[in-house]
Amino acid sequence: MTSTISLNQVNLPAVAGLVAAIQAAPAKAHTKWSSDVRWTGAFQTEASVRNFDAIRSDEPATLGGSDTAPNPVEQLLSALGNCLAVGYAANATIAGIAIDELSISLEGDLDLHVFLGLAEGHAGFSAIRAVVDLQAGASDEAIADLHAKVAATSPVGHTLNAAVPLTISPR
Amino acid sequence: MTSTISLNQVNLPAVAGLVAAIQAAPAKAHTKWSSDVRWTGAFQTEASVRNFDAIRSDEPATLGGSDTAPNPVEQLLSALGNCLAVGYAANATIAGIAIDELSISLEGDLDLHVFLGLAEGHAGFSAIRAVVDLQAGASDEAIADLHAKVAATSPVGHTLNAAVPLTISPR
Repeated sequence: MTSTISLNQVNLPAVAGLVAAIQAAPAKAHTKWSSDVRWTGAFQTEASVRNFDAIRSDEPATLGGSDTAPNPVEQLLSALGNCLAVGYAANATIAGIAIDELSISLEGDLDLHVFLGLAEGHAGFSAIRAVVDLQAGASDEAIADLHAKVAATSPVGHTLNAAVPLTISPR
Repeated sequence: MTSTISLNQVNLPAVAGLVAAIQAAPAKAHTKWSSDVRWTGAFQTEASVRNFDAIRSDEPATLGGSDTAPNPVEQLLSALGNCLAVGYAANATIAGIAIDELSISLEGDLDLHVFLGLAEGHAGFSAIRAVVDLQAGASDEAIADLHAKVAATSPVGHTLNAAVPLTISPR
């Protein structure tokens, strides 16, 4: 199975092991994820995930920030692209498709009126687009199946594309 | 206006300038944001925003990754917390409230069945919770108003809480 393990450098046996574990005990699929954010002054913040270096955030000068890091909506688009890329890597590997190159351009439209208090309503992205540049040696049909599979299974994609219950409460 | 400028270190005149510019020309509120993601092998990716250092992403070993960076759903929660923190800093400053400390704990529930191809349906978070620890010298009423204002105006919060049209297309 060495060739399977090394296709796209993906550790397919680890994924298969998780699948088997969940099939044996479905509750293992119920995962919780977390992040802890700390405000450091002005519009600058740090998000801590597990023991990794903090993810820093700021706003551009035009929005009143110090422009020292990507802002939260850019981080949201980044999370989407990162998630889609994992989906391509995983599903291509399962399908036996070698990926030569994969890049994804994300873009989102946002009307600042609500954020700035100039209107009420939807403050978020009104639309998000991901354009996928995939170079891989496979038939058009296999590539089309891959695109469909990724779109049907993306955790971040589905979170954005659905109205997810969000609770914001004081401690 | 020096005291206003330095409250919470927020550059309120810059925000006021943007508000005035948008009131004079509403189309200036229609902004586009972007990120470019590149797959680097296995489940590792890099997201590039403007000229900042790339945001790296990976998956935990249990999910078949190399566990070198936060994963995409943790980055999504981080983006939410970073966005809420900017909202608190901005709206507290406008209300004349000095923030002593602000931290936000984010948590989300995710059933892996769909991501792993074991079921069809919603692959994303089923619920997201943000618990806000705000230390600030203000009346209970002013603090309650602040919480309400932030929840009503958060770009990332509203993006998660609404079904945003998402288009994923091959280049």
